[in-house]
Amino acid sequence: MTATDDVFEIALRWGDMDALGHINNVQIARLFEQARVECFNSWFGDARKGIHLLVARQEIEYRAILHYSTDPVRIACSISDIGRSSFEFGYQLLDAAGAVCAIAETTVVIMTREGRPTPIPDDVRPILDEHKGEPVPFRRRSGTGK
Amino acid sequence: MTATDDVFEIALRWGDMDALGHINNVQIARLFEQARVECFNSWFGDARKGIHLLVARQEIEYRAILHYSTDPVRIACSISDIGRSSFEFGYQLLDAAGAVCAIAETTVVIMTREGRPTPIPDDVRPILDEHKGEPVPFRRRSGTGK
Amino acid sequence: MTATDDVFEIALRWGDMDALGHINNVQIARLFEQARVECFNSWFGDARKGIHLLVARQEIEYRAILHYSTDPVRIACSISDIGRSSFEFGYQLLDAAGAVCAIAETTVVIMTREGRPTPIPDDVRPILDEHKGEPVPFRRRSGTGK
Amino acid sequence: MTATDDVFEIALRWGDMDALGHINNVQIARLFEQARVECFNSWFGDARKGIHLLVARQEIEYRAILHYSTDPVRIACSISDIGRSSFEFGYQLLDAAGAVCAIAETTVVIMTREGRPTPIPDDVRPILDEHKGEPVPFRRRSGTGK
Repeated sequence: MTATDDVFEIALRWGDMDALGHINNVQIARLFEQARVECFNSWFGDARKGIHLLVARQEIEYRAILHYSTDPVRIACSISDIGRSSFEFGYQLLDAAGAVCAIAETTVVIMTREGRPTPIPDDVRPILDEHKGEPVPFRRRSGTGK
Repeated sequence: MTATDDVFEIALRWGDMDALGHINNVQIARLFEQARVECFNSWFGDARKGIHLLVARQEIEYRAILHYSTDPVRIACSISDIGRSSFEFGYQLLDAAGAVCAIAETTVVIMTREGRPTPIPDDVRPILDEHKGEPVPFRRRSGTGK
Repeated sequence: MTATDDVFEIALRWGDMDALGHINNVQIARLFEQARVECFNSWFGDARKGIHLLVARQEIEYRAILHYSTDPVRIACSISDIGRSSFEFGYQLLDAAGAVCAIAETTVVIMTREGRPTPIPDDVRPILDEHKGEPVPFRRRSGTGK
Repeated sequence: MTATDDVFEIALRWGDMDALGHINNVQIARLFEQARVECFNSWFGDARKGIHLLVARQEIEYRAILHYSTDPVRIACSISDIGRSSFEFGYQLLDAAGAVCAIAETTVVIMTREGRPTPIPDDVRPILDEHKGEPVPFRRRSGTGK
């Protein structure tokens, strides 16, 4: 986590566990979704009117098993890259003991109401710039078999 | 899809839709999980005894909105890369009309029961080789802002 | 199941299991939801235009543990009672071996688009009559402690 | 809510909404499950060792549409009836504005590890007695069509 990150506490649910007794990896994507929704609510106000945000890509690296706890996880959010009509949203999920259990990045595309990509609006770009942080420190990359 | 792919029909549920009225992107990860489980059941038999499979990374590229339908989606599965103690599992999700709605890749690590990575067993590797297909044709990569 | 029942095959998902290794009781409500959606799609055509269906009550009796299987469950659906502006929708969930794992009943209220209960329309009532079956054979009732 | 109730704050998730834009009725069962888990954790300590709790029946009455909010809901929990080897667990779900959106009751059966009903243990019964509250005020009952 860096100084530019916003951190959201997200509660786990007993039902997020799968038959292996861990928080299921798909439910971890659900936790990231919730952090993203809360983060966008916090960052964007009227700036978001008239635009739609589309999830075009998502990558999650699972670093450690996440166990169910009544203590919430903390998800640190920042912008990891900014393009012309899309941006990269980065996350780091820490359990209650502070261990990094998963990191993720979501490519978000700005869409018109008609469903076509459109340049990042002038009132949205400064908000993204303000929250620009480090690249997400993925260790593994596809196609490497490592 | 190529000749080496195994294809699984996975039923959608009305409840997979989110407030936008589309199959939710997290639920698409759930569909991929189901295809992977069915695929492993089909490929591995006794070969899987004594090993655990850990999801260490997952990347999904969303290509088109997936609408709810009582027709199942088809998910084509193949191995996209094989390492020493892990392999890459690739998927392509097609809706009932044959449109590619999402592609994905999961890094699966072979673990001992004690929770440590271990080389791919000798009876598992030939099964992976047999199902080796093309790399997953991702368009976007993290850190490019495109 | 009786002659008036409609039966729907609903696929289980590995992710429907909880940490106890069984299909989770909340997910069983998800399976009933899916059967109800498919059943309404099948029964109602244009008759459903202009009305909304609201779930006002649901009761589920869990009879036997439901284990994950790649074989779908079968859910038999019928109308168990018909009122003025609501009806009772009954279900029976059978696993692949034919064991009754859960029975349920949902009170469905007919609503106007404005969100108020309204009498069952004249073109809907005969459809409900046609599928009228037996009461749902609940053993336990609330407040009895049995 | 009465003086005997324990109240748990449960966070909603954006993903709990369905295609109608409301918190889905099945997800409301998920919220009740979470309250029950947290409540049992709070009430029972070593008393729970060696016993299993089985959900044998659940009834939910949906009173008002629950809208997504970053404010948690509050779920008040109490024991509504106590039998020989089972008890009734009652809940009331209030949204952030204090409106009762759903009430529910779950029949919980005490099971041995071998999976057979067994009388409520001597160290569990006083805990249930301590939290004994009013019957759940259901308006609708099955089989009445009202």
